[in-house]
Amino acid sequence: MDQAQAREWLATAVAEARAGLAEGGVPIGAALHGPDGTLLGRGHNRRVQDGDPSAHAETAAFRAAGRQRTYRGTTMVTTLSPCWYCSGLVRQFGISRVVIGEADTFHGGHDWLAAHGVEIVLLDDPECVAMMRAFIESDPELWHEDIGA
Amino acid sequence: MDQAQAREWLATAVAEARAGLAEGGVPIGAALHGPDGTLLGRGHNRRVQDGDPSAHAETAAFRAAGRQRTYRGTTMVTTLSPCWYCSGLVRQFGISRVVIGEADTFHGGHDWLAAHGVEIVLLDDPECVAMMRAFIESDPELWHEDIGA
Repeated sequence: MDQAQAREWLATAVAEARAGLAEGGVPIGAALHGPDGTLLGRGHNRRVQDGDPSAHAETAAFRAAGRQRTYRGTTMVTTLSPCWYCSGLVRQFGISRVVIGEADTFHGGHDWLAAHGVEIVLLDDPECVAMMRAFIESDPELWHEDIGA
Repeated sequence: MDQAQAREWLATAVAEARAGLAEGGVPIGAALHGPDGTLLGRGHNRRVQDGDPSAHAETAAFRAAGRQRTYRGTTMVTTLSPCWYCSGLVRQFGISRVVIGEADTFHGGHDWLAAHGVEIVLLDDPECVAMMRAFIESDPELWHEDIGA
């Protein structure tokens, strides 16, 4: 996919991550786009806000999109490499593409997804890296809780 | 683990699945137990009831258990072999064991979990098989939607 388009979509996920940070939460955001580019759902990690450990950003965006008959041609955009839980979501529901802000601070299941035919667009976005790095340094316990480490 | 114990725990998941069926939903139930056997959370698929495609039974039970510092020693009990999404949940959070009612009507990611060190207890429970088989026959469209097929 076009890098400019990927960066434009990433902006929505970054805005979600910033909103989560402002709420005192884990700063990871995501957005799900339809095959024609329509924004189907957006969300951010809500572990702290809702006391919900399942509310990873990708799951929040997927949930916000509601019931869909198929995910063929959809794109999940996320500020951070998806963990195994969110990678499993992508594989199970046949989401076609994942746009990732960065995989420096956390390396999840995106290689596994690529091996199973999912298109991976890794952007190495400096803002995403800086936001996660600052968060991990300021609240390592919360971060480790969020990834079950 | 002891088979009698596994079957006793499965009863909770089956009760959840039945409750989901009575609500017009997908009849899959789950329960998360702590290392000492304490029931931490229970739930069932709520795709239809909440319009929430992320509410697979295992995720519902995990969510109901709230925030936990660690999942070491915990057991996820589910009426059906966990899909990739729920298998990813188990792997990411380090849930130690999965008790499965049946894997005849759907074969998810439990072999992958076993390969990654998760203890798998597959019970081949006839009631679980019968419940899923009847559901798949009566509402194949809903079932396919639930697994992204």
